[in-house]
Amino acid sequence: MDAITTYEAKITADEQVDKWLSKFGTAASAANIDALLALFHADASWRDLLAFTWNIGTAEGRDAIREMLGACLARTAPLAWRRKGPARLDDEIVEGVATFETRVARCKAVIRLRHGKAWTLLTCMSELKELEAGFDARRRVEYPNGRVHDRTKQPHHEEESEKLATTRQPYCVVVGAGHCGIALGAQLRQLGVPTLLIDSRERPSDTWRDRHDSLSLHSPSYFDQMPGFSYPANWPLHPSKDQLANWLDAYRSVMDLDVWTSAKCVAAAFDDACGRWRLKVNRYGGTIELKCEQLVLATGLFGAPKVPEIPGKERFKGLQRHASQYRRSPDYSGRRCVVVGAGTTAHDVAADLWGSGADVTMVQRSPTIVMKLEALIEGFSQLYGEAAKARGITTELADLLFAATPMRHLVRMHQELVTQLKQRHARFYQGLERAGFQLTFGEDESGVFPQILRDPGGYYIDVGASELVIDGRIKLKSGVGVSALAEDSVVLSDGSELPADAIFYATGYERMSVAPIVGEKIAAKAGRLWGLGSGTRNDPGPWESELRNMWKPTQQTGLWFHAGGIGMSRFYSRILALQIKARQIGLSTPVYKVADALHAAPLRAAVPTGTASACAAR
Amino acid sequence: MDAITTYEAKITADEQVDKWLSKFGTAASAANIDALLALFHADASWRDLLAFTWNIGTAEGRDAIREMLGACLARTAPLAWRRKGPARLDDEIVEGVATFETRVARCKAVIRLRHGKAWTLLTCMSELKELEAGFDARRRVEYPNGRVHDRTKQPHHEEESEKLATTRQPYCVVVGAGHCGIALGAQLRQLGVPTLLIDSRERPSDTWRDRHDSLSLHSPSYFDQMPGFSYPANWPLHPSKDQLANWLDAYRSVMDLDVWTSAKCVAAAFDDACGRWRLKVNRYGGTIELKCEQLVLATGLFGAPKVPEIPGKERFKGLQRHASQYRRSPDYSGRRCVVVGAGTTAHDVAADLWGSGADVTMVQRSPTIVMKLEALIEGFSQLYGEAAKARGITTELADLLFAATPMRHLVRMHQELVTQLKQRHARFYQGLERAGFQLTFGEDESGVFPQILRDPGGYYIDVGASELVIDGRIKLKSGVGVSALAEDSVVLSDGSELPADAIFYATGYERMSVAPIVGEKIAAKAGRLWGLGSGTRNDPGPWESELRNMWKPTQQTGLWFHAGGIGMSRFYSRILALQIKARQIGLSTPVYKVADALHAAPLRAAVPTGTASACAAR
Repeated sequence: MDAITTYEAKITADEQVDKWLSKFGTAASAANIDALLALFHADASWRDLLAFTWNIGTAEGRDAIREMLGACLARTAPLAWRRKGPARLDDEIVEGVATFETRVARCKAVIRLRHGKAWTLLTCMSELKELEAGFDARRRVEYPNGRVHDRTKQPHHEEESEKLATTRQPYCVVVGAGHCGIALGAQLRQLGVPTLLIDSRERPSDTWRDRHDSLSLHSPSYFDQMPGFSYPANWPLHPSKDQLANWLDAYRSVMDLDVWTSAKCVAAAFDDACGRWRLKVNRYGGTIELKCEQLVLATGLFGAPKVPEIPGKERFKGLQRHASQYRRSPDYSGRRCVVVGAGTTAHDVAADLWGSGADVTMVQRSPTIVMKLEALIEGFSQLYGEAAKARGITTELADLLFAATPMRHLVRMHQELVTQLKQRHARFYQGLERAGFQLTFGEDESGVFPQILRDPGGYYIDVGASELVIDGRIKLKSGVGVSALAEDSVVLSDGSELPADAIFYATGYERMSVAPIVGEKIAAKAGRLWGLGSGTRNDPGPWESELRNMWKPTQQTGLWFHAGGIGMSRFYSRILALQIKARQIGLSTPVYKVADALHAAPLRAAVPTGTASACAAR
Repeated sequence: MDAITTYEAKITADEQVDKWLSKFGTAASAANIDALLALFHADASWRDLLAFTWNIGTAEGRDAIREMLGACLARTAPLAWRRKGPARLDDEIVEGVATFETRVARCKAVIRLRHGKAWTLLTCMSELKELEAGFDARRRVEYPNGRVHDRTKQPHHEEESEKLATTRQPYCVVVGAGHCGIALGAQLRQLGVPTLLIDSRERPSDTWRDRHDSLSLHSPSYFDQMPGFSYPANWPLHPSKDQLANWLDAYRSVMDLDVWTSAKCVAAAFDDACGRWRLKVNRYGGTIELKCEQLVLATGLFGAPKVPEIPGKERFKGLQRHASQYRRSPDYSGRRCVVVGAGTTAHDVAADLWGSGADVTMVQRSPTIVMKLEALIEGFSQLYGEAAKARGITTELADLLFAATPMRHLVRMHQELVTQLKQRHARFYQGLERAGFQLTFGEDESGVFPQILRDPGGYYIDVGASELVIDGRIKLKSGVGVSALAEDSVVLSDGSELPADAIFYATGYERMSVAPIVGEKIAAKAGRLWGLGSGTRNDPGPWESELRNMWKPTQQTGLWFHAGGIGMSRFYSRILALQIKARQIGLSTPVYKVADALHAAPLRAAVPTGTASACAAR
């Protein structure tokens, strides 16, 4: 009986999606925008990744969708909408995946229907028709038999890397060869875009190696896979920083990327006349000038360590270190250590110090969002875990389904999750509060994930240190600041004093500024990076519905930004690479609504099709 | 109709296997050897990998099977025989995979039935019950939540490596960190065996890097995967030597192996009293003494380059090089080059020279086995290719099915293949013969693969150079030797003279000798390595039915050999690692029939159960 019900429900779900796609296809072919809009709920959201807009954007509500269609439908000419795989029925939402084509690309869509009408739609470019080069393409075409004289032309790779920028110029330069840079590098190489990565470090992976010893990935490694090359089967769920660092070295080498290390990009100027960048790169004591059409900054979201100004700092006789300089060492055994801050690093360092026998006090200056690791894992496992894999959800499909949830929905989902977690982990949270720990779940109670998108920091995914706080093994002073240092103690804002042999400032990092590379003018022209415009702390509005300036055209032609965690970078590096490839091969790429730089004005009004400002080929 | 037939045939195949397994299980539980033998054809072969014999061996014919069962059945006590997956019907052979257990291990079996009776049986240990650690095990068990104080104990890996042999001794030392050594290292690490790899090179992967530029893998990369860590999705079918070298570096680092490089093992003596090896290792100008219980030599099958003695060598004014020193260079353009030899390297170098504009003559001294690459690929793809994967044949299953074919059958299959290929590629072979190329298909017409197992060399997998030979772009002198060199020419044994500016000796390598490490006495005690005892050239009998001394106990306690291609090493490194792990944890491992060292005597007669000589715990 159950089987029959499920089967019928499935038929219905499939049919609902098929019917919707068929109507949509017909209306789209007839360029009938009213008929298209009739297929959407009034509050529907349509997220587009390049397919219609050559941009990353979410049209929220019918009016915004109408505006977008008015600008983009005719030139996109989407057709051949076909359901791919079975539709799923979840609560009252029917979810289907589809493929379609535009004039220039093969695309995918995720449709979520409520009572037969679209509640959300994702349209996402996946391949340029001229050049279908997914990560499995090379294996299929390569066949050396009878082509021995081609095989002898295998490049001597290291030499070729050095030639870039001497005998020939790269089309694209990526500044930063961390996990984001090399993921993008691999995508661009796969698409055949001549790309040079430059990184100021001798070994870019040292960014990971140089952090505190107990650092490991919190998101599960099955989520944090990189593009086209998977971790070993025995990789831990939470690789350590050193494992990650070794992995990044391996990825760079095995994926055959052109990387200059010990190379610092000290200036980038855009020549409007010829539409190219001129870069100045310091390397081995000299300065090299590079030219390129596309410049991607993948230098991370954070800059220099942030250490608070505290009166009496020079008086303190013990050790003072920013947490980024913390190394585990038997020295701290029996010593009185104060950790200033209560975010991830503060917890890691405090637990590490406790583990090596130190007497640790954490100074919590402001409330922290705390989430148990298992809740995070649960969230990821639904789409990316082994059970999901067993249900046929590949990483590629999971990425698509994840991307299909508009930011506003994502925030709502996380608010619901927080409500659930507060109940499920009530004892845990009560324990923290009893210990005096100041909890928050974010200004709008949406927890960790939206926080990361708005203003990364101020949270802790509990991998065990909270337990130490709860039972007092890590001591706590909360709701206080550090007002001064004495010779051998920390004076807190409530007047109390903490005797201390060592102080660790787990007080975060400055936000990365790109001005040192591109100059103040271009930095201002591009505007704020990251954040959604939620109007919450450090994420000023207006609401943008996407991450600001990430992986998409900016107000500065030829300037792109790439940042984010490893899992996010896997997906969006492909989106960014497709945009660069399209420009390299001279495709017309009219961008719909390049986001404003300053985000001070309200959302822009409709711009008619074809006007230079909104749809300029970039 | 077809569907029904297939369905019924499948039912029958499944039933046949189930019936056989049920009878086998009952007879085995009753220790009824006669009843067991009645389930086999008189000419049946039973290949066992550790499950019954703690050895690698094939019992050929009912008498040999009776003998093996007599010695091993009671102590093995196999049970719980269950078919795994559907049986396959191919011609008149029904093939089924099964799982079973022994006292100490979980095992797999492959049964091939002809008219309901076993024609071949493979029994293969896959996991020790005490310790089930496949490559996906670590991911499952690791979960750091609440274990923060454990996490702080993450080893500083490089430091730990150096400590091995100073503060603590490894249980196992693997000499050689090439693809075999590191595959074994990864298996042993996965099983938790403290292992140190040592390699005399500063960068062991240079073994690949230092070869001729056009070298690439001939076997497809989907076969030549290493254990537990797969190539990137865009890896070519035939990776170049440099890609392979980078891969090996990445594997070593990502799989977290303890490797000492620039460390040369100059002596290994076995202390019979305490059952341990004492090794002398030269490193950084000093000598370190190491102790270990198990010593694995994975230094490869080949040693120094072999250069023929030729009168007048010193007179020749041009360039003389062993092919291992050949590098592509524009220098050879327009030069007259002679390549001595007609195997793989000779063809690669000749084609490479031709490609850079040289005038090349190949001197073929004796007939060569030639096989077109596509035939090789076809062979591998049946078990390991994408179509096989789509049929549900994982690499693990493919390895098992491959191992299930006894050596004698394998030779017969390849004889049949050669007969087919001679027809299918008749024009190709005629072309070679018309060009004067001397072909052979091996003494028993079994082609390339058995040749590799008997006496690696003397063959060419054609990736294009044969075409150049056929149409004369690579010139050929065949059936002649080099009798002398003149100032600017090579004098051949037929009296003719080849004007030459450069000579490349693609004349192979010496067979590796282990005497420089373990001494003449132990080397002699262990006896000949590799080869099947086919009685063909360089593979003297008696017939051994397995590769001599490979991955299995030798006459020297605690001494093991590991060699072979990447794909072979993937599977047999696990078999070898299980044996070492069993000894480390003190399991009883009575070995059935340790092979004789000299192979001069006829196959040994039956040895009753439990006698020290045949079944000594090793």
